[in-house]
Order: sequence, then C-alpha cells, then structure tokens
Amino acid sequence: MPFLAKIYIVMDKLGKEPYKGVRDFYPEEKFRQNFIFNKWQKAAESFGYEEMNASPLEPTELFEAKTGEEIINEQTYTFTDRGGRRVTLRPEMTPTVTRMVAKKKREMSFPVRLYSIANFFRYERPQRGRLREFYQLNCDLFGASGASADFEIVNLAYSIMKEFGVPDSKFEIRINNRKYLNSLFREYFSMDERGIQKISKLVDKKNKISKIEFMEQIKILLGDKTKEFVNILENADLKKLSSLDSFFRENEGLREINSLFEKLQEAGVKNYRYEPSLVRGLDYYTGMVFEIYDTGSKNNRSIYGGGRYDNLLQIFGEEAIPAAGFAIGDVPMSDFLQTYDLFPEYRSSADLFISALKEEFIGAAEKLAQELRKEGVNVAVNLSAKKITGQINQTVKKSIPFILFVGREEIASEKYKIKNLKTGEEKILEKDSLAGFIKK
Amino acid sequence: MPFLAKIYIVMDKLGKEPYKGVRDFYPEEKFRQNFIFNKWQKAAESFGYEEMNASPLEPTELFEAKTGEEIINEQTYTFTDRGGRRVTLRPEMTPTVTRMVAKKKREMSFPVRLYSIANFFRYERPQRGRLREFYQLNCDLFGASGASADFEIVNLAYSIMKEFGVPDSKFEIRINNRKYLNSLFREYFSMDERGIQKISKLVDKKNKISKIEFMEQIKILLGDKTKEFVNILENADLKKLSSLDSFFRENEGLREINSLFEKLQEAGVKNYRYEPSLVRGLDYYTGMVFEIYDTGSKNNRSIYGGGRYDNLLQIFGEEAIPAAGFAIGDVPMSDFLQTYDLFPEYRSSADLFISALKEEFIGAAEKLAQELRKEGVNVAVNLSAKKITGQINQTVKKSIPFILFVGREEIASEKYKIKNLKTGEEKILEKDSLAGFIKK
Repeated sequence: MPFLAKIYIVMDKLGKEPYKGVRDFYPEEKFRQNFIFNKWQKAAESFGYEEMNASPLEPTELFEAKTGEEIINEQTYTFTDRGGRRVTLRPEMTPTVTRMVAKKKREMSFPVRLYSIANFFRYERPQRGRLREFYQLNCDLFGASGASADFEIVNLAYSIMKEFGVPDSKFEIRINNRKYLNSLFREYFSMDERGIQKISKLVDKKNKISKIEFMEQIKILLGDKTKEFVNILENADLKKLSSLDSFFRENEGLREINSLFEKLQEAGVKNYRYEPSLVRGLDYYTGMVFEIYDTGSKNNRSIYGGGRYDNLLQIFGEEAIPAAGFAIGDVPMSDFLQTYDLFPEYRSSADLFISALKEEFIGAAEKLAQELRKEGVNVAVNLSAKKITGQINQTVKKSIPFILFVGREEIASEKYKIKNLKTGEEKILEKDSLAGFIKK
Repeated sequence: MPFLAKIYIVMDKLGKEPYKGVRDFYPEEKFRQNFIFNKWQKAAESFGYEEMNASPLEPTELFEAKTGEEIINEQTYTFTDRGGRRVTLRPEMTPTVTRMVAKKKREMSFPVRLYSIANFFRYERPQRGRLREFYQLNCDLFGASGASADFEIVNLAYSIMKEFGVPDSKFEIRINNRKYLNSLFREYFSMDERGIQKISKLVDKKNKISKIEFMEQIKILLGDKTKEFVNILENADLKKLSSLDSFFRENEGLREINSLFEKLQEAGVKNYRYEPSLVRGLDYYTGMVFEIYDTGSKNNRSIYGGGRYDNLLQIFGEEAIPAAGFAIGDVPMSDFLQTYDLFPEYRSSADLFISALKEEFIGAAEKLAQELRKEGVNVAVNLSAKKITGQINQTVKKSIPFILFVGREEIASEKYKIKNLKTGEEKILEKDSLAGFIKK
C-alpha cells in the first residue's frame, strides 16, 4: 500500500482543533498579537531595558522553591524526562530571570535592566478567559533600590498604557508597600509569622469574598482589634493615616510610598493612589507593590502589576540583590484594548499584489516583484491566471492595500496601472515611481 | 519561621543552570537571535508571506499521523495530561500549519502564503549541536502548484541568504524531484512500495555511510541493475540523463526540474544545480525538493531545505491542496553566519545613558530622559550617585553608544555635554538638538 494512502486511512478522523485551552494564531490574530508585542518592546526599550529569554522548559526545582509542591503538581505542566529529570513548562518568568542573573552576577554591571516577551503554561481547568498558554511582557530592574528605582518601574508600567494611547481617565495606578504591611501586622498588631501569612492572604482576596465572610475571618485573627484594622484598611488617605499614631508617621514602608508619590507628581503622572488593601499574592515581594487598574469600563479590575522583591536571589545561595519588576499578560491587555477599541484595523504585511493578466505574463510579474522588493516593498504575485475581478476581490479580502496589473502593454511601456484598494484611487506610473507611491 | 528564611534553607543548593539541552538567551545572545529573526521576517514578508503561530502544545495524534509511534515516543516530549489527553511539544511546524489550513480552508482565499518563527522540541541525546529546543523559520505556500509556485519557494529560500549578505560563492541550491525519484524506482526499476521506501532511505543517507556499505545495500535491493542505478545517481547532468532513455526525456518530475531551472536562470540566480541523490527524509514530499548547501567552508553541509507536499491535507480528511515550503533552523543558520563573520557587533537597545553627577540631580536626569524618550530615543538613567569614570566604564561595557552628564550647570543652561563612546567625540548641545544628534 502506498505510504500516503496508508496515512490517509489511519488519519481519516484526525482533528483540526488545537490542544485544549491554547490558541491558534492565524494572520489576523498574529497581527493583533504583534501590535501588542511591538508596543511592549518599544516602551521597554525606551527605558533602556534589554531583551532576554530562556526556554519554557525549566528544572521543576526552580518553581518548587517559591511556589510549593502542591501548586507545582496541580497547576503546572510537570513531567519526568527519560533521564529521570523533572521538567516544568514555566508558569511565570521571575524565577528564570532571577536564576540567570544569579548565574552571571559576577560579570554583570548593575543596575541591570531586562525584559522578555515569552509564553507561559498553566494547567488550568478550562473556563472563559483561563488559558493554558499565554504570553507576558516581563520587565525587571536588578541592583537598584530607593525611590528612583521604584519610580522607574512604576513609570515604565504607566508608559506602556500611554504607548497604547490609553487616556488617564481609563486606568489608575494603585500602590502599596509590603514592608509597611508586614510591620503593620508584626509590630502594630503583634501578630506572628503564621498570622501574617493568613491575614495577607485574606486581605489579598478581600474583593473576591463577601464582606461578611471577610469580617468573620478577620475577627478570628484579630479579635477586638478588628475594628481598628478595618478602619486602617478602608482609609486610602495617607495624611489621615499618619495622624493616627506615630507608628504610621515613622514607618519606612509608608515613607517609601510617599517618596514614590513625590516622584510621580514631579513627572506629571496624576492617576495614582494609595490602596491599603493591595497585597499582590506572591510571597516574594518585599517593598513597593502596585497594579494598573481598569477604572473606565464596567469590568473594573487589575490589568497588570508588580513590585519589589529584594531577596529572591538568595534562593540560589547568592547575596540578596535589590530587584523590582512587573508582568503584563497578553490576554488582559488584549481584552482591555478591545474594550476601548484601541486595536488598529488588520492589514496584510504585503503592500502590493501584482496581477498578471495572462499566464504568459507571470514571468514579467515576478521580475517586477523582485525589483520592487529590493526597494523595500512587500509584494505577492498571482501564480496562475484568474479573472481580474477575482484577483481584485482576493486582494481586498486579504487586506493588501495596492494592486497592480501586468499585461502586454505594461511590459512594453514599463508603465503600470496601480490601484489603491482602500481609496479606489488609480494611477498610471513609471516603474521607478511605484515604490515611492506605495510607501507614502 | 519567616517564609523567606524557609525557602532560603530549602533552596540553598538550587542550581543556576537551565534544563539540559536548552539555551539561556542573555541580551547578547538575544541580540544575535533577533538579528536572525528580523532578517527572516523581512525576507518572508517581502514575498507577501503573513505571520502565523500556534502553541507548542499539540495533540500527540497530529504527529503520529506522519511520524509513526516509535519516533513520537523516543524523540519527542510526549506526556498525558490530567484529563487523559496525550500532548506533544511540537517537533516541527508542517503538521500544525497544515492542520490550521485544513480547519479554515473554506474561508481562505488561495493561494495562501504563511510564515512563522517558532520554537520546537526534540528529545535528543545530549551531544554537540543537538539541542532539545531550537527555533525555525517556516514558510509555506498553499493552493499553488507548477513552476511559478516551486520557483517562488526556492527563490524565497535563496533571498534569505542574500538578506544576510551571503555571496553566491558560499552556497548552492541543490534540487531534485520526488515525483521523478518515485517513478524511477517504481517504473524504471520496477520496485514495489516496500523497496521504494528502503531505497529512498538508503539514498537519503548516502553521504553518512561508507561507499562500500552503500553499494552492498543497493545490491541487495537492485541486484544486477545496481551499476545502472549508481550511474544514474552519480550523473548530475540533466542533458546527459535525458540522452539515456525516453523514460528520462518524458518524465514529468524531470520536466518540473527543467522548468524550475529556467525560472531561476531568468531571475539571474546562478548557484543552483541538480542533485540526483537528494531525497530529503520526510515522507510527505511529492514533487520538487531542494536544499541550501554550504559550499564555502570546510564543514560543507545542508543548511536548510524543503519541498512540495501536495497530499498532506488529506490526513485531515480534506481534499488535497497543492503545497510547498521550507524550514530553516536557528542553530545551523547561526553556525553559518559565525563561520563567515556575518553577525553585527553587539549594541545595547539603549541609545543613551544619562549620568547624574550627584544624587540630587537624578530627578532632573529622569525628566530629561522622559523628554528624549518622547522623541524616540531609548534612554537609561543612573539611579544612584557613582563616580563618573565608573559610569562611563559601565556604559561602554553595556555597549550603549552615547553618554550625557547632568549637573547643576547643565540644568541651569539646558546645555548638555554628550559623548559618543565609540568615536570619543564630545559635543555640547542644546536640549532640542540631542535627539537629532543621537539618531544620526
């Protein structure tokens, strides 16, 4: 039996769908993804961040260090290779970028500014908006602390929104500080580590549970101090806060927030505020935490965020290096841009379609295409004779902006009729003028 | 125990190496990778190819169809997810792109030109040059056949070499045709499917085994026709070939080669030739096959290649659609560019480093940075006061081309000293002239 006949039979029912929970990117989807990626790249590079990447395959230990075995087993793709190595498809970038900085720490000249645009994998139960593969921009600043460093990270996160043309009225920057929160729990409310872990998790999910449930849980942890804590948690005014007690006036974390606010104000940023209930789940944050919050749509929510994580290098047995960063996912970014209609219209990467009017002119069409490519025009050529109307329709359907016709006369005169399919404008041009006409 | 102290102890010996057989891309490696990706993209788009992609996670069945279970189990990363689905990290792109075209066939307007730049995974035994993750450019043309379509694919593959500035003397395009080879085996040598499979595999590895072994194996398959076959296999002259027998004069596959050669000649391409022993391993090829071969270095070898695969859509139960394409790996491409010293020198994505002469001027430095970013300059700022010589050294080390100093005088006069660290040239410029100076 011929080989191809054989596979035809075997594969008769082979599915055309991608693996569950991941996306196919056809040219139109890839165009929108590239739109996001290009803006991310432009913003990150404008702040002097340099691109890095690594493989999505990482040793499982890298994530266990921070995340705990349970999550590794239940929420990541983890398997054992034939050499007995445990491998995980990365669920986030921070452990990887920290590993890489730890490795080359001695050769690096700090501060180091790094960004990556990469894909991540999470074994999610399939539901709306929960994908098993997604992309993120990660920006990280290593080897710098203080108000200038915190400001740079928040300012870069803010600049990304401006790069997409989002007006200030549609989002705000919410800021808190883990150093303050930790000392609030440890010193002001005299809690132990266990209690701090619990109350941090509780505050983090404050808006996801009912007010009654939240209050009940707080009472278990804080007893008769509950009311005082809730007052603090509901007070978004830093001045009022410092009038309560000398603890608040002298707290280092709160001072860091104030310094960051001064920097933001100097830079002309206005849409920021202190958010007392902002924790951000990850255990590794040690100072400033922030998120970019959608305030303009009905679906108010955090779009992205980050913070300072000064101790993470220690997991590699290295001295701590101050570090701060943030991550943006392509899915929330894309949802946000869609909500505010900020995606550009799809356009093919081809600028021009050259249509040979008869089969015999295809050679001449190819030759012209090759000449125009050398002048920087992206050109597709028809490869078989079709009716002109069919070729025009196809070019419109593919969102290629220009079409040009090659027939006997055009070849002889070296003058070509070119049509702008968007405006309908037609022109007859000398060969040498074509590239210039298309580019403008 | 504080959480961070706990992970510190657990992770004391956490390794800094990536997973075995994959690469970390620090900024310098990413710079070289981006250099390759950008040229690939530019060449593909200049021919009107549009970018697509998919997840590296694919249903295992997709690859079993073509590759056979043995290879899936031994040479790919394949595992079962918790939903009982078998998942494979894609080892190549063709099955994926074909799946996607099969799915949207009815909405698509053919011919369809697609390219992708994506990563692939193979469970290789660790050895030099054999990586477990690598990248490829894939270009595919669906819905077109004939000499123009074959020519477009070969011409695009050729143009990629020209995009990198490789002279014709360093490589050649080797061409053969599977339609011809199949009819040679089936009709001319009267072999059955089993024999054709065997002899194809043997010819494919001709240059990897000894001449004696090759001859012995051929004799088993062809007996007293061995000498005749070897003569055909060693004859790279198409004219001589057609003088042997009417079979060769009338063969459709050979006619396709001749038409392709005519097109290449018309386009001014010179470094191509017929290679009778070129098979290319993959079972799905049905016509033209080619490879770009390194002829200039000591390490002569195939760098990349592809061919026509008209029947692959049938595995999805769809009608056959003519298709042709090729793939280039980042590892052989990079080795080749290194051999001929075609990589540009590393340069940071930052254009300018702004150095505040004292801590108190950092705010002014940040403000200037923000203004220059708006004019399209990528600017990094120092975040703590360091000695000027240290800052200059750091800027040189990071390959940032310009440095600018901000002190009391500069802030007052709005005139800044800027230094080109490559040429040593220094200039004092008004704020408004800085962006223009840096960009030129």
